[in-house]
Amino acid sequence: MSQPFGMRLAQAMDHHGPLCLGIDPHQHLLNDWGLNDDPAGLAVFSKTVVEAAAETPGVAALKPQVALYERFGSAGFAVLEDTLELARQANIVTIADAKRGDIGSTMQGYAQAWLAEGSSLAADAVTLSPYLGYESLRPAIDLALANQRGVFVLALTSNPEGATVQHLGAAGDSVAKRIVDSCTQDNQNAVRLGSVGLVVGATVTAQAEALNIDLAGANAPILAPGYGSQGAQAENIREGFGQAWPNVLVNSSRAILQHGPKVSDLKSAIRDARKDLAVK
Amino acid sequence: MSQPFGMRLAQAMDHHGPLCLGIDPHQHLLNDWGLNDDPAGLAVFSKTVVEAAAETPGVAALKPQVALYERFGSAGFAVLEDTLELARQANIVTIADAKRGDIGSTMQGYAQAWLAEGSSLAADAVTLSPYLGYESLRPAIDLALANQRGVFVLALTSNPEGATVQHLGAAGDSVAKRIVDSCTQDNQNAVRLGSVGLVVGATVTAQAEALNIDLAGANAPILAPGYGSQGAQAENIREGFGQAWPNVLVNSSRAILQHGPKVSDLKSAIRDARKDLAVK
Repeated sequence: MSQPFGMRLAQAMDHHGPLCLGIDPHQHLLNDWGLNDDPAGLAVFSKTVVEAAAETPGVAALKPQVALYERFGSAGFAVLEDTLELARQANIVTIADAKRGDIGSTMQGYAQAWLAEGSSLAADAVTLSPYLGYESLRPAIDLALANQRGVFVLALTSNPEGATVQHLGAAGDSVAKRIVDSCTQDNQNAVRLGSVGLVVGATVTAQAEALNIDLAGANAPILAPGYGSQGAQAENIREGFGQAWPNVLVNSSRAILQHGPKVSDLKSAIRDARKDLAVK
Repeated sequence: MSQPFGMRLAQAMDHHGPLCLGIDPHQHLLNDWGLNDDPAGLAVFSKTVVEAAAETPGVAALKPQVALYERFGSAGFAVLEDTLELARQANIVTIADAKRGDIGSTMQGYAQAWLAEGSSLAADAVTLSPYLGYESLRPAIDLALANQRGVFVLALTSNPEGATVQHLGAAGDSVAKRIVDSCTQDNQNAVRLGSVGLVVGATVTAQAEALNIDLAGANAPILAPGYGSQGAQAENIREGFGQAWPNVLVNSSRAILQHGPKVSDLKSAIRDARKDLAVK
């Protein structure tokens, strides 16, 4: 890769808008598409989504949901590898949504899997989970930066039970704020957009403010799930993120995928989402 | 499986003692054993460890470190599947150390991968990471209990950066305490030892006490890394855990694995660890 991940993502967002299309091969979606819930069905599903994204402007990044491949073990991972390769050939930024997290040489193992040159699972970025502390993720952050790749660290999520961990801490010193502050430090020398991203729910920007979290100041790409089927409207997301909005990558999965299995219908849904998300 | 995971694990610990043997195929260990750092080397390494564990009393559970298989993508996962199958045939309890965590139907995907009947990756238990809240792990807890399997939820770890998340919260209401309290509730009807376990570092029992965490009251199997190469002595671990000690599964990886590649040397190291950990 010739440029840092943050720069490449920013360019993709300039060109396509802020949409990240999740590849979420749920059993019910496979069934709705007339596919079997098995690795072969997974492969057709994934290939179709990549094809739709490649053929129309509007998808800044593709985000395969690793759990839904992992449920088929090594056979599912083989499909994921093929899917990442198809996206690579189509020159689409990929984010492996794996939410990995461990310490030391074990964390290094996850980093190698998702961020090393030549790894069969290598993506442009991977999502990470910081229960073991932000700094425990350092091997992945370092490898990402060395390889012009990126990470997205879970910070503040919209699931109701997320607050039971993420909001804890003294006033102005919550778990979530510590994650964002550490990320801010890692991005401080980035030219345009940093390569150490955050995951922040599209519907929790008010909580971020209440926790005194400065999302815009993090100079981080912000992966925001919650648009579309999960209820957040484009206008509210833009307003909620405020000054951080230019850095926000808005994820949509089911709201677009439910329009399959025809590539033309998926492309049409992508175009609609792109229009809906266009900033004024 | 005919009995709940907690019961099966307790019986294994009665018979073998509290040792959990980690299968950690690090590059340097593979090299030390004269193996290539590739899937073929991984397979020989893993098979050798299972063989040693099967041939001598002393290993209550085997804990493959998923990250170190995942670094080889689908090929590594295929080796992990074979390894879990070998352990199954040898009737040894397995804990997949995957530290997975997500929400809703995605968490369900991870649960299916590691805890569903017939899954190629099915283990007796899997480790989980609760940054998204303890309740976000519910699909895995439910599937584990339905299938007589178990989970181990990260609670309080010994890596220095762990405290930056796990210790936060008001006095008596830290992140780690909330995890343990939720686990306690899930185990309250278990007959002997619950099937919802915790991960607590072998060297942080004093912090657990300072955080007002009641480990013994959780009725949970406690997976405790840190013995051996990471510095904790058997006597200190026993003293540290106090009344919870009978529920503690003490993990050792490198301190035993470094004695390979000969099965007889590994068996001898297992016997030494068993003796060292025997309570009086």
